[in-house]
Amino acid sequence: MKNYIKVDEWKVIEEGFNPHHHQVSESIFSLGNGRMGQRANFEEAYSGESLLGNYVAGVYYPDKTRVGWWKNGYPEYFAKVLNAANWTIIDVVLDGEQLDLAKCEVSNFRRELNMKEGYLKRNFTAKTASGKQVEVEAIRFCSMVDDETAAIKYTIIPLNFSGNITITPAIDGDVMNKDSNYDEKFWDEVSKANDTDCGYVVMRTKKTGFEVATGMKFIIEQDGKVIHPQTESILKEKYVATKNHFQAQQGQAISITKYVTNLSSQNHNPDSLVEQTDATLSRISAKGFDTMLAEQAAAWAEKWKHNDIIIEGDASAQQAIRFNIFQLNQTYTGEDDRLNIGPKGFTGEKYGGSTYWDTEAYCVPFYLSTAPQKVTRNLLLYRYKQLGKAIENAVSLGFKNGAALYPMVTMDGTECHNEWEITFEEIHRNGAIAYAIFNYVRYTADETYLADYGLEVLLAIARFWSQRVSWSQDKHQYVMLGVTGPNEYENNVNNNWYTSMLAVWCMKYTMEVAAKVKAVDAAKYDALTDRISLDEATEFSRFGHIVENMYLGHDEKQGIFLQQDGYLDKEQILVKDLPATDRPLNQKWSWDRILRSCYIKQADVLQGIYFFEDDFDIDTIRRNFDYYEPRTVHESSLSPCVHAILAAKLGDEARAYEFYLRTARLDLDDYNNDTEDGCHITSMAGTWMAVVEGFGGMRVRDGKLLFQPFIPEKWASFSFHIGFRGALLNIKASREGVQIKNLSNVEATVSVYGKDQLVKANDELLVEA
Amino acid sequence: MKNYIKVDEWKVIEEGFNPHHHQVSESIFSLGNGRMGQRANFEEAYSGESLLGNYVAGVYYPDKTRVGWWKNGYPEYFAKVLNAANWTIIDVVLDGEQLDLAKCEVSNFRRELNMKEGYLKRNFTAKTASGKQVEVEAIRFCSMVDDETAAIKYTIIPLNFSGNITITPAIDGDVMNKDSNYDEKFWDEVSKANDTDCGYVVMRTKKTGFEVATGMKFIIEQDGKVIHPQTESILKEKYVATKNHFQAQQGQAISITKYVTNLSSQNHNPDSLVEQTDATLSRISAKGFDTMLAEQAAAWAEKWKHNDIIIEGDASAQQAIRFNIFQLNQTYTGEDDRLNIGPKGFTGEKYGGSTYWDTEAYCVPFYLSTAPQKVTRNLLLYRYKQLGKAIENAVSLGFKNGAALYPMVTMDGTECHNEWEITFEEIHRNGAIAYAIFNYVRYTADETYLADYGLEVLLAIARFWSQRVSWSQDKHQYVMLGVTGPNEYENNVNNNWYTSMLAVWCMKYTMEVAAKVKAVDAAKYDALTDRISLDEATEFSRFGHIVENMYLGHDEKQGIFLQQDGYLDKEQILVKDLPATDRPLNQKWSWDRILRSCYIKQADVLQGIYFFEDDFDIDTIRRNFDYYEPRTVHESSLSPCVHAILAAKLGDEARAYEFYLRTARLDLDDYNNDTEDGCHITSMAGTWMAVVEGFGGMRVRDGKLLFQPFIPEKWASFSFHIGFRGALLNIKASREGVQIKNLSNVEATVSVYGKDQLVKANDELLVEA
Repeated sequence: MKNYIKVDEWKVIEEGFNPHHHQVSESIFSLGNGRMGQRANFEEAYSGESLLGNYVAGVYYPDKTRVGWWKNGYPEYFAKVLNAANWTIIDVVLDGEQLDLAKCEVSNFRRELNMKEGYLKRNFTAKTASGKQVEVEAIRFCSMVDDETAAIKYTIIPLNFSGNITITPAIDGDVMNKDSNYDEKFWDEVSKANDTDCGYVVMRTKKTGFEVATGMKFIIEQDGKVIHPQTESILKEKYVATKNHFQAQQGQAISITKYVTNLSSQNHNPDSLVEQTDATLSRISAKGFDTMLAEQAAAWAEKWKHNDIIIEGDASAQQAIRFNIFQLNQTYTGEDDRLNIGPKGFTGEKYGGSTYWDTEAYCVPFYLSTAPQKVTRNLLLYRYKQLGKAIENAVSLGFKNGAALYPMVTMDGTECHNEWEITFEEIHRNGAIAYAIFNYVRYTADETYLADYGLEVLLAIARFWSQRVSWSQDKHQYVMLGVTGPNEYENNVNNNWYTSMLAVWCMKYTMEVAAKVKAVDAAKYDALTDRISLDEATEFSRFGHIVENMYLGHDEKQGIFLQQDGYLDKEQILVKDLPATDRPLNQKWSWDRILRSCYIKQADVLQGIYFFEDDFDIDTIRRNFDYYEPRTVHESSLSPCVHAILAAKLGDEARAYEFYLRTARLDLDDYNNDTEDGCHITSMAGTWMAVVEGFGGMRVRDGKLLFQPFIPEKWASFSFHIGFRGALLNIKASREGVQIKNLSNVEATVSVYGKDQLVKANDELLVEA
Repeated sequence: MKNYIKVDEWKVIEEGFNPHHHQVSESIFSLGNGRMGQRANFEEAYSGESLLGNYVAGVYYPDKTRVGWWKNGYPEYFAKVLNAANWTIIDVVLDGEQLDLAKCEVSNFRRELNMKEGYLKRNFTAKTASGKQVEVEAIRFCSMVDDETAAIKYTIIPLNFSGNITITPAIDGDVMNKDSNYDEKFWDEVSKANDTDCGYVVMRTKKTGFEVATGMKFIIEQDGKVIHPQTESILKEKYVATKNHFQAQQGQAISITKYVTNLSSQNHNPDSLVEQTDATLSRISAKGFDTMLAEQAAAWAEKWKHNDIIIEGDASAQQAIRFNIFQLNQTYTGEDDRLNIGPKGFTGEKYGGSTYWDTEAYCVPFYLSTAPQKVTRNLLLYRYKQLGKAIENAVSLGFKNGAALYPMVTMDGTECHNEWEITFEEIHRNGAIAYAIFNYVRYTADETYLADYGLEVLLAIARFWSQRVSWSQDKHQYVMLGVTGPNEYENNVNNNWYTSMLAVWCMKYTMEVAAKVKAVDAAKYDALTDRISLDEATEFSRFGHIVENMYLGHDEKQGIFLQQDGYLDKEQILVKDLPATDRPLNQKWSWDRILRSCYIKQADVLQGIYFFEDDFDIDTIRRNFDYYEPRTVHESSLSPCVHAILAAKLGDEARAYEFYLRTARLDLDDYNNDTEDGCHITSMAGTWMAVVEGFGGMRVRDGKLLFQPFIPEKWASFSFHIGFRGALLNIKASREGVQIKNLSNVEATVSVYGKDQLVKANDELLVEA
C-alpha cells in the first residue's frame, strides 16, 4: 500500500522523485493505444531499478515451459507477451557527463498522466555530479488516431552552463523478458539502418517469426529553430542511434521531437516493412507533434463521451474510476479480433499469455456498455476463431466428438498454463465463454451472432460438459469430479457448485439457442449440425438427462449452496478472526494449509449467484452472501467487485462502498504491493461494474435497461454513460433523484426503481428519489 | 518389456551386442558396494548411446529447483545423486584407430554379472573399420571388503595383426548429470596429478563442498610379464590419463590391471585425501587383483549365507530373486548411518534424492531378516539424526511445538520434492517412519532403541498428526483434509483411510511407547520430555481424544473401508474392462482424467491392511482386497508385492504368484521400458517380501516367527534364510513339508502352520505337509 499519487480529477500526478516508487510509477503511468504500449520508462539513461517494457499487441513468443514434474497434456510452451524494441530512448550527455537521474540531484520532479487528452508529461530539474543543472520536460503519447505511431517531445534547458551537449535518440531491440524461463532472448535482428535524422531496426521473434519494424525520425530545435547538428551514426547489434553534438547555451531550450512507428508483420507484408516505416514516419512528422497531440485529445474526448463516469464530492474516487476506464481503453480498442485483453495490458509482462476468463466474466460488461457493439463482438470472435484449438485441447485430454475446452491462458488458442489443477481442472472458464455469448445477445439483441458463430461454440462447450460429468452409482445423479472453481484456494474438488451449475446452464442454453436458430434459419442450422456431425436426438437427450439429474450440493440446515463436497468439514474460523499477521494467506501460508482451510480467494458460489441472480430469491442470495463472504479473503483483484454488486443488491450500501474502495485505487495506491509488475487491467473492468451495476444497480432484463441506484454516503452524485442498442444515455444519480439524459437520436425506455421511463431522443428526465 | 537376458541361477548373462539394449544393460549390470557404485559403462571409448554413471554414496548436489509456479514452502533445491568422476576409462587405440564398439563389427559379445562372487565380466571380439581384430576380456568389481576401492583387469589380444597399441587408463571428472535442471556442471577441480603408472583427480562439489579424490594405479603385462611401456602424460581440465604405447604381437595378450580408489571428504580429512589415495592404491595394488577378487568372492559368500533364496524347479525365478537380493546388497550395507537406499541405488540418477518412504515400508523388512540388526538400526538412526530438519520442515508449513514432518524425498533431511500434492500432502510417509520403529522393535526386541531414539521421533510425529487433523463441526469427528495417500492417482483428497488410520495408530503407539519408557527408565523419560517440552497431560489427552474420535470412512453396504471421501462417486469400471491401449494410464491419460477415475496406482487401503492385518478379520481383508485390487493398475513398482502377500494370505496362490512375477523380473526383463534409467532398487525388497511373507507366510507375532508356506505350482521347492534374534534359520518349503535348519548356536521356537516348533541350535526338523 502506498499513497504518493496526487489526487486530481483528470490527471494522475507524482511529485518528487523517489526511486523506490519508480517501478510502480512505470506501471501506473503506462501508455497504450490497443496496438502498442509501454511502461513509463525514462527517455534518458537511468541506472536505477527499472522494468523495461515496450509491447506490440499480438506479438508473442512461445517460451519453453519450465516445470518440475511433467504431466501428460501439459503445453510445451507458454506464449508470452513480448518485451519489444525500446523506442523511448533519448540519451543525453552534458559535457561528457551522462544525464542519469539515479546519479543526479533531482528537484521539481513531476510526472503527469493526462487522462483527458491521453499523454504523459514529465518535468524535472537535475544537477549532475559536476554541478551542471538542466531543466527537462518530456511529453509523449501513443497515438489513438494512428495506432502504429507515437511521438515524444523532449526539451532540455541548461540552467547554469553553456557547453557541449550530445542528444542520442535510439532504438534498442536488444531487450529481454524479465520472466524468460531460461534467460533466453526472444528476438533476432533482421535489418537496421540509420541516417542523420532517422533510423530503424527490424526484429524477428524466434520460433513465431513475427517481424516488427521499429522506426524513428527526429527533429532538433534550439531556441525554437530547427537545427542540424553534427551527427554520428551508431550501429550495434539490434541497435541504431544517431548522436547529435552541439553547443548549448545557458538558458536556451533544446528540444528533440522523436516520431516513432511500430509496424508488425501481422498487419503488413514483411517485405514492405521498411518502406512502410519510411512512409509512416514521413507522414506523421509532416503532420507534426502539435497536430498529433491535438488529434489525440480529440480521440480521447470522443472516448470519454461514451464512457466517462463523473463522481461529485470525492475527487479521489473520481480520479480512480477515470484511471480504470483510461487504462482499459489504452489496452483494448476492439479494432482487431486477433487481440484480447491481457491481465496487465501494456503495463508489464507478468501472467505471460494474454487471454484469461477475465475477458468474458469481467471485461465484456464494460465494453458492452461503453464501446461500439463490434468491440464486444470481436472479443467473442476471438474465441470463435480459436474453437479449433479448443477442440484439439479437449482431444489431448481425452474428450471426443467435437467437445471443446478453451485454454486457461492463451495467446493464439493454444493452452499455455501448466499447473494440472488449473490447466486441466479450472474448467469453469468454458462456462464463462458461453455466458459471454448469452450476455452479448441479451445486451445487444444481435441474434445473428448465434446462428453465425455462437451456436457452434455453445455446442462444442456443451459437448465438453456432457462428457466431463460422470454418473455416480452411489448418488444416482451426475457428478463433476476433480475441478477447481473460481476460488483457486481449493484444488481438485468434487462437485464445485459454481462449475456444475454453469455446466447445466450451458447445456440448457445451448439447446434453447439451437431451437431458436433452427426455427429462424433451418438451412443454416442444418449446415452447421451437418458440419459438426451433431446427432441431435442422442446428444440433446443426454444434455437433457444431465440437466435433469445433475447433483448440485446444498446444505439444508443453513440454506446455502455447497461450494463443493466436504466444504462443511472444514474448520470454520471466519476471516475476521484470523490474525492479521497471517494475511495475505498466499504469502504467509503453505499451499496445503490454504487448501484445507475454509478461506475463499474470490467469489465462487457468489460468482454463480451474480451471473444468474434472477434464478434466486433475495433470501437465498442473502444467506449465501452472509455465509460465504465472511470466509472470503479477496486475494484476487477480481473478487471485491462481485461482492460490491451483491452487497448493493442486498441493500448493504456501506459494505458495497467498502468493496468498491478495495478495487478502485488498487494500482494507484499499490494496494497489494505488486503494481510494479504492471497494473491489474482486467480487474479495472470490475471497478466499473461495481459503480454501474453496484451503485447504479444497472441490469438488462427483457431487452431493457434497469437502474436502481444508491449514492455512497461520501458522494454528492455520480453519473455514467451507457450505450444500449443505439441509444447513448447519461445516468446521473444524486440525492434529488435519477436524471437520465438521452444523448442520441434513438429513444429509449429504461426502468428506474422498478418503473418504466421513456426517454426521448436528445431529451432528459428526472426520476425523483 | 524385453527378453534378452540369459537365464542362469547365479549369473546375469547377455550374449551378442545390441546397442538398443546397451543402456538397459548398463543399469542391470551395475556394480556397487554400498559406498560407491557405477553403471556398466564400457571401459574403452563408446560413441553410441550410453548413460554415464559413477556414484559415491552420500555425495550429493543441491540443484536449483525448476518449477513452473512457485508455492510457499517449496524447497529451493533438489539434492541430487551426483554423477562423479568416471574411473572405468581404459581407452584403446590400435595403430591410430580407436577401439569403439559403436564403430566395430562385434562378435562373441558376452556380459556376465557373477552374483555369487560379485564381479562383472565382459568378453568380445571386435573388428575395426580397417579390419583389425582384437579379443577383449574385462573383469571388474567394487570391493566389498575395502569399500573405497575397485579394480579392473582388461586384457586385449590382437588376433590378426601386430602393431602399435596405445592403452590409456584415465580418470575423468568432467562429467555432468543428465537430469541437471539448468544444464549446469556440479563439480569443480581441486587438484590432479599423474605419473607413469598412476594418477588422481580431486574434485569438489559446488555449494555442498564435498571433496572426492578418485585415484588409479595400473600395471601392464604383455604375455604374462609386467612391462613398462613408453608413456605420455595427459592433463586436461578435471582429467588425468597416461598413454601407454607399445608394440603388440599378434596372438599375444596385453593386460592392464587398474586399481581404483574413491575417497570422500565425508570419511577423510580433505587435506589428506591425496596422501590417503596414494596409500590405499599402494595397499591394494600390493595385494593384487587375484587376491582382491578372492576376497570379494568370500565376502559375497558370507552375504549369501544370510540371505540366499533357493528356488528349485524354476531357474528364471531363481535368477530373478538372486538378482534382487544382489542389487539390494550392492546398494546398502548398513555400515554408515548417514547413508540410505535410493530408489535407483548406484544404477542411475533418476529420482534425484536418495531417501523415500520406500526405505521404511519396503526395505526395512528385508534388512531386518537378512542383515545384522545394526543395519536396520542405522536406517532408523538416519531418520533420528534428521529429526531437527523434519521439525524445521513442519514449521515452514505452519506446524508448531516440535511437530515433525519428514520429507518426501531427501538426502540430508531437507525436503527436495516440489509438487504441492506430494511434498505437502503425501504425509503418510510420517506414519511409515513410525511404523518402521514399531517393526524394528517387534522384530529385534531392541527396546533400548525406543528410550534412546525412537520415542523422540514418535512424539514429534504424533504431534504432527495431532495438529494436522481438524475438527469437523459437521461430522462431530476429527477429519484429515487435503492429503495424498500411497495411491498417488488421487491428490488432495479428504479422509484418506490409510493416512487417517496410520495417524491414529501413530498417536496410540506413541502413548504406549511413552508409558513403557516411563516405566522402564523414568529418568531418561523425564530428560526427554523436558528437552522437548512435552506437556504430557494436555498433549496426550488431545492424542487420546483424536484416537477416540477420528473419522475413518467405511461403506456399510459393501463392507469396505473407503479409500477417501467421495470414492464411491467415481465411475466404477474395473481395470480388466479398460482398453489395453489406455494402459499404462500415466502415459496415456491426462492427469485430471486419472484423478477423477477410480484407478489406483498402488496399494492404499490394502497397504494399511498389510501393515495391520491382525486388526482385521479375514472376511474384511477379503472384501477390501476383492473390491480394491480390481481397480488397481499397479503402475508403481511397489504395488504388486503387497498384493502378492495379501493374495497369499487369502489363499489365492495363483494370483499371489502372478503378482510375484510382475515384480521379480521387473528390471531383468525391462518390464516397464524404463530400466535404462536405472534399476528399481527399493521395489526389489518388495520381491523378497513377496517370497518370504507371501509364499513363506512369514510373520513376527509376540516375539516369534510364524511360517505358513505354500509352494507355487511351478516350483519344486523354495528356501530362504532368516536371521532372528541371534538365530540363523533356513526355511525350506517343499511338497513334503517345511524343513527348518537352525544354522546358529541359538535355539529358536517358530510356529509352522500354527504349531510351535522348537529348533535346537545347529539342528534341523521337518514339519510334514
